[in-house]
Amino acid sequence: MPKINTNPKNINELLTRGVEEIIVKKELEEKLKSGQPLNIKLGIDPSRPDLHLGHSVVLKKLKEFQNLGHHIILIIGDFTGMIGDPSGKSKTRPALSKEEVLKNAKTYFDQAGKILDLKKTEVRYNSTWFAAMGWEDVLKLASKFTVARIIERDEFSQRLKNGTDIAISEIMYPIMQAYDSVEIKADVELGGTDQKFNMLAGRELQKKMNMRPQNVLTVHLLVGLDGTQKMSKSLDNYIGVTENPNSMFGKIMSIPDSLIFNYFTLLTDSTTEELEKIKADLNPLSGGPKINPRDMKARLAKEIIAFYHSKKDAEAAEQEFNKIFRDKELPTEIPEIKLAEKSLPVLDLLVKTKLASSKSEAKRLVEGKAVEIAGKVILDWKAAIEIKNGMVIKAGKRKFAKIVI
Amino acid sequence: MPKINTNPKNINELLTRGVEEIIVKKELEEKLKSGQPLNIKLGIDPSRPDLHLGHSVVLKKLKEFQNLGHHIILIIGDFTGMIGDPSGKSKTRPALSKEEVLKNAKTYFDQAGKILDLKKTEVRYNSTWFAAMGWEDVLKLASKFTVARIIERDEFSQRLKNGTDIAISEIMYPIMQAYDSVEIKADVELGGTDQKFNMLAGRELQKKMNMRPQNVLTVHLLVGLDGTQKMSKSLDNYIGVTENPNSMFGKIMSIPDSLIFNYFTLLTDSTTEELEKIKADLNPLSGGPKINPRDMKARLAKEIIAFYHSKKDAEAAEQEFNKIFRDKELPTEIPEIKLAEKSLPVLDLLVKTKLASSKSEAKRLVEGKAVEIAGKVILDWKAAIEIKNGMVIKAGKRKFAKIVI
Repeated sequence: MPKINTNPKNINELLTRGVEEIIVKKELEEKLKSGQPLNIKLGIDPSRPDLHLGHSVVLKKLKEFQNLGHHIILIIGDFTGMIGDPSGKSKTRPALSKEEVLKNAKTYFDQAGKILDLKKTEVRYNSTWFAAMGWEDVLKLASKFTVARIIERDEFSQRLKNGTDIAISEIMYPIMQAYDSVEIKADVELGGTDQKFNMLAGRELQKKMNMRPQNVLTVHLLVGLDGTQKMSKSLDNYIGVTENPNSMFGKIMSIPDSLIFNYFTLLTDSTTEELEKIKADLNPLSGGPKINPRDMKARLAKEIIAFYHSKKDAEAAEQEFNKIFRDKELPTEIPEIKLAEKSLPVLDLLVKTKLASSKSEAKRLVEGKAVEIAGKVILDWKAAIEIKNGMVIKAGKRKFAKIVI
Repeated sequence: MPKINTNPKNINELLTRGVEEIIVKKELEEKLKSGQPLNIKLGIDPSRPDLHLGHSVVLKKLKEFQNLGHHIILIIGDFTGMIGDPSGKSKTRPALSKEEVLKNAKTYFDQAGKILDLKKTEVRYNSTWFAAMGWEDVLKLASKFTVARIIERDEFSQRLKNGTDIAISEIMYPIMQAYDSVEIKADVELGGTDQKFNMLAGRELQKKMNMRPQNVLTVHLLVGLDGTQKMSKSLDNYIGVTENPNSMFGKIMSIPDSLIFNYFTLLTDSTTEELEKIKADLNPLSGGPKINPRDMKARLAKEIIAFYHSKKDAEAAEQEFNKIFRDKELPTEIPEIKLAEKSLPVLDLLVKTKLASSKSEAKRLVEGKAVEIAGKVILDWKAAIEIKNGMVIKAGKRKFAKIVI
């Protein structure tokens, strides 16, 4: 049996930092103080294997439980993943093949392993229990929940109000997710605020099945690089956990100052004391920031890169960033693109060099005066560009390409 | 392939007599006229095997389909019967053992065989398909129905309004019943008005599974002997299909005149012409009943007894009835009860002779001046009665006992 750390300071940090809500906090505190190892559950959707820093918040919280000696269990929703949503109403539930699920799970672990100690982490596939269940089991489970209770869920009550139909199959998913908690005897379940309803269903089901109910811990959602919306891939305001150091550095330097403290809290291992100092240093009430926010962002970026890559990578990324932006030099390495054409319309050139993903994006870049060719800003999106060997093209702040003919 | 009767007169009779509603009548008419044999479904609840004349209405309608050459399929809900309602919310869904289900089904067939030709009737147990289904199948089925559609059902919307919880398992039953129709490729489903929702769910599911949708035919509910409420065992206003001829005769003679025509329509094989004549004979607008309603009831009783027993039994029952009520004689056979006591309080005597089921019922009978002992009406419920050999006790109109000491 692992030795459990019951240090009140550690427990307090675990239950406050980055935490949105705990149901029920007093109960969880007692479990943590008891010195018994707890089963800590995180459910994983195998249809979205790519992790960004938004996902790291909950994984870092899991790591804190792991550090105290508790037992982490990742539930891969492979069964529901393979079924998908037969009604086709939910975009987040495409049906996946067994191979896709396993491939996605591997991708997930490769990334989660940067945060969690995977050797001490248990992984369970929920097909293990669901594949063996029949109508009778389904009805028994379903009998533990009422229609009123399930359609209370924000998403459902909203849809009923809007007159958007809810397939009966959709209301079965929270029940299945709840049953995962019963199967693994979860003591605590972690997740984002959007998962609160499902996690509480797990707590209720455990009670009804005469099991000690799990506590539910929700973490803060991470705001994306734009400073307003939740970090997500679809909004393109994210930093992937496998992104290269230069890209991470550049993106963190671009965040609004108002996010600095939040990112330190949710994404770094700074201690409570360090966080208090950062807060004071950034506080305008104490006579304006004592430290230039730019320097604070550089420190933040280096801490994050050191975590996901290495300290050396962090230093190198800072130097590269300074070379380009502070000293206005070209980056050390610019991707070279071989072209056969003698001349190209500027939009085609940007797409061919992969500086823009489409002509319309290319046009937007030109119109935003963000395109420089051989040191000259291009103003006309209909311009034809003469191709020359060694010509450097810059699009936006951090994207470069060099032509070879 | 059986020869199908497509005679328009027969089809018209089939679709009107005792019929409450048909969805969609035109569609069903076309199916019947096509000359193709149709699958006619009736679902049976194996928890209630005892049939009374109220149940006979739908069975007689099935028999009419059978007479035209169509294929009758009785679905025994053994699977749901064995599960019962795990939430314990539905009183009509006790969990039954396999043996109970089979025993009840046998009892049902023994009785239904008085109406249907069982040699031409197919019986299917729904465990055949449900026992083999898993979560994936359940979710696929459930995806065909929406929450809004299911809670539309009168019973459910009523309960939601009253704040009475509905277990999620309960909303699965209509889905299962609907799937029965898919499995047996039903062309028509018959049932009482209270089954309309579930039958329509079957129609919808067939459509969604690209099958020709079944038509739904509901029959009139039979009013009980009291002339006001639905015939049911719990209201004790019923005639069982296995009841003895004397009891059937007496009960039918007791119905209010207003029920006579309705009972002829729903419970006998009278032709349309005969029914019209009965209606005219009973019509007060044509100068009051041309025939004494008492004689009409006797004819009704004899027709029903001839159907469930024999013509001879019907005649005998009439004679017995007349002997007791018209000629005020004692019935031919009176149950004999052996008693050792010399004297008994009247209430105990009535209970011991099984003429009353409890002392309070006995007291009510005495107070209603319905108790005669040795030809004398008993007026005092505290009276002590001296027991004599051969003494006849009468309670109510048709219950007798003879004492032997």
